[in-house]
Amino acid sequence: MSATLYGVGVGPGDPELLTLKAHRLIREAAVVAYPVNAKGEGFAHTVVGKFLQSNAIHLPIHVPMKTERAPAQCAYDAASIEIAEHLSAGRDVVFLCEGDPFFFGSFMYLFERLKGDHPCKVVPGVTSLTACAAELGRPLAARNDVLKVLPAPLDAAALTRELETAQSAAIIKVGRHFDKVRGVVEALGLTSEAWIVEAATNPEQKVRRLGDVPAGDRPYFSTILIYRGEEQW
Amino acid sequence: MSATLYGVGVGPGDPELLTLKAHRLIREAAVVAYPVNAKGEGFAHTVVGKFLQSNAIHLPIHVPMKTERAPAQCAYDAASIEIAEHLSAGRDVVFLCEGDPFFFGSFMYLFERLKGDHPCKVVPGVTSLTACAAELGRPLAARNDVLKVLPAPLDAAALTRELETAQSAAIIKVGRHFDKVRGVVEALGLTSEAWIVEAATNPEQKVRRLGDVPAGDRPYFSTILIYRGEEQW
Repeated sequence: MSATLYGVGVGPGDPELLTLKAHRLIREAAVVAYPVNAKGEGFAHTVVGKFLQSNAIHLPIHVPMKTERAPAQCAYDAASIEIAEHLSAGRDVVFLCEGDPFFFGSFMYLFERLKGDHPCKVVPGVTSLTACAAELGRPLAARNDVLKVLPAPLDAAALTRELETAQSAAIIKVGRHFDKVRGVVEALGLTSEAWIVEAATNPEQKVRRLGDVPAGDRPYFSTILIYRGEEQW
Repeated sequence: MSATLYGVGVGPGDPELLTLKAHRLIREAAVVAYPVNAKGEGFAHTVVGKFLQSNAIHLPIHVPMKTERAPAQCAYDAASIEIAEHLSAGRDVVFLCEGDPFFFGSFMYLFERLKGDHPCKVVPGVTSLTACAAELGRPLAARNDVLKVLPAPLDAAALTRELETAQSAAIIKVGRHFDKVRGVVEALGLTSEAWIVEAATNPEQKVRRLGDVPAGDRPYFSTILIYRGEEQW
């Protein structure tokens, strides 16, 4: 009988924002897998490093970040084979996910490859969406507000169309799309309602009004929040 | 000097989905406030009951659920006065919030009344949004998907317009709006991509295809998830 693959959300960066369930699974994990960049650094792994057993088996997974898909698909294929070997040998595997596993994460690609042959469970986590709002000190949405999560790589026309009918919006993965996004927000007259939160709950966190940020690229983990919901009462 | 008001998300219902930070603040709380219904029952309070100190001071807050706003405004005014007395006396107050305090929650109304005179902090929590996706075992969104959170009380025209341009949608607070919402989803040809999750992570949880549910009202804490994002790879 196969062991279980757990996709575990570790939250936005503050280790105290792990759930009790994530904390338990991570402390007990015999095998941990996690995404890493080309330098071998993994954000999710850094967040929970202090909770891991010293003898845990580590499976860092490097996925090339390219426009064409084939290299990433190969990386997920290889990783799923490696993970499946542990599962088949009876060892549970904990896959560490930034934020939440199913909220714009990469866990889904392993989940899709492995769920047919192995038990796979997802432990939800705190997303950057609500972490940014908490750090900013402004509500995301209330009552019958329409809330939209919009990836910054969308083109200006799509962003404009979606922002026109949203009481609340979170524009995620701002990075090198900052100037385009700010142009859209300004053209809609929403700049006074817009804030940018970088690296929410991490030591290098920055919270500013959109209008106060100079032109140029921002970090990948930057979110622009716009709230023009009902009058606060 | 005033003590601090903490708005603390307790997550979707499973007590193990509290964050470590929420768990710490709730265990240490001298004063806890929380919403209750007309019978005096409070969902958030029930979730964390076992973690509270036996001598904690309890402030149940009943807010009348009516279309006109005046009764609710009066209830928040009265609650904020009561909370402010504890804060001014140097006692921190932990306000328990279902899910996340700033994600369609009522904490914002107390926050708006108290933030001018007292330190107020928000501890984000796991929302029903990602908890539903985790229990369903289907991703919410990936890459450049547009994700929309749509309250079910919106009229059919607004729901239709927003669903037409969403790769992913979560329709929340389904309750007595179920038949209307299902009609919209069917008219758009999206029924085969739609699931309904009731009471996610709670003992009475139900997960079903939208097409398998008979007509009629559903519980308030029901969410319809529709995902038609990019092909899984």
